[in-house]
Amino acid sequence: MFSLYYAPGTCALATHIGLEEAGAEYEAVRVDFGSQAQRSPEYLAINPKGRVPALATESGTLTETPALLCFVAQRFPAAELAPLADPFALAQVQEFNSYLCSTVHVAHAHRMRGSRWVDDAAAIEAMKRKVPSNVTECFELIERKLLKGPWVIGERYTICDPYLFTLASWIESDGVDTAKLPRVMEHRRRMLARPAVQRAVATEGVRIPEPAAARSPPA
Amino acid sequence: MFSLYYAPGTCALATHIGLEEAGAEYEAVRVDFGSQAQRSPEYLAINPKGRVPALATESGTLTETPALLCFVAQRFPAAELAPLADPFALAQVQEFNSYLCSTVHVAHAHRMRGSRWVDDAAAIEAMKRKVPSNVTECFELIERKLLKGPWVIGERYTICDPYLFTLASWIESDGVDTAKLPRVMEHRRRMLARPAVQRAVATEGVRIPEPAAARSPPA
Repeated sequence: MFSLYYAPGTCALATHIGLEEAGAEYEAVRVDFGSQAQRSPEYLAINPKGRVPALATESGTLTETPALLCFVAQRFPAAELAPLADPFALAQVQEFNSYLCSTVHVAHAHRMRGSRWVDDAAAIEAMKRKVPSNVTECFELIERKLLKGPWVIGERYTICDPYLFTLASWIESDGVDTAKLPRVMEHRRRMLARPAVQRAVATEGVRIPEPAAARSPPA
Repeated sequence: MFSLYYAPGTCALATHIGLEEAGAEYEAVRVDFGSQAQRSPEYLAINPKGRVPALATESGTLTETPALLCFVAQRFPAAELAPLADPFALAQVQEFNSYLCSTVHVAHAHRMRGSRWVDDAAAIEAMKRKVPSNVTECFELIERKLLKGPWVIGERYTICDPYLFTLASWIESDGVDTAKLPRVMEHRRRMLARPAVQRAVATEGVRIPEPAAARSPPA
């Protein structure tokens, strides 16, 4: 059985949903960020980066969301969570998830985790001021170009979807005007209707902002 | 035939090396950052993110280094650049490359690309001041834990190696003391001995700092 180390409100939710979608046997282990448990010697022995998610498997512990999601897809092929046999299609999936981890998550992180990149208090405030426009720019690219609909890569639900859902659940707090992102909001609505998503969200106890009603009835 | 869009001194070198290792047929197309060609309508039609690398294939264009490297490995399986059939081993490869793109490259980027995350000149300077310690911290983790040796994941050369080599080629400029990273420097030396690496480096015309002589003769 796997152990997923997570904290509510973090990107660990993406892997959590992935495990639920795959029907994996796992336990969800909450890491208490309030008491800085992610910096404890016990947790650093599991993940020396001091972050979540981490997934303990029978072969060892894995970290980094894009890697974990691809692992879940490959380990549970019956769930068909990625086009594993098609190099171009799989690369598109990984391209999307790489963009989320290296650009979108990073743009968001400058609001709460500015001390990662700067020591100066005024600079940390200056970083926060740019987060709304930066995250908006990322999500406008997703809205206009990257999200094919109804799921990220088109007709097929993949490991891109829980990851997008997770990062998109932060955008209201990041100061993004979601009225300009109807397709991203429709994606959130579709995700919230999935039992696997509901289970992961309930276990973590996170509150995902309810999307406003669709402007037109779904087709 | 593929077209790889690159600029010298960027992370596109990793994919460039990967294509050489795979024996792929491709042309290397230089994007002139000096004239801001990455922001031209012509280039934005290829890659709306306005960055390199981008790889034009017969099926469409792909971006994001971890995705491109995995694509090259899967598309040219005879080159054996990744443990494609082993979910855990492949996840370890992707975990390493995800760490490079989302943490290491981002730590480095705060030196030259601070305006991505802040508008204030003083804050940009404050960011630059933290780059040496931040990049050092990343590479100490690589040195102590992640780089198994002789190659990143152990005995086998994979798509992790050109990516590590590329980001490690920037660390002198980032203010990192390479004397504390003998294993990373030994990795650079091994990489520079590979004909595929030499070809990509020569085509791009980049200068990789020569590692100091090894303290003890190689085994």
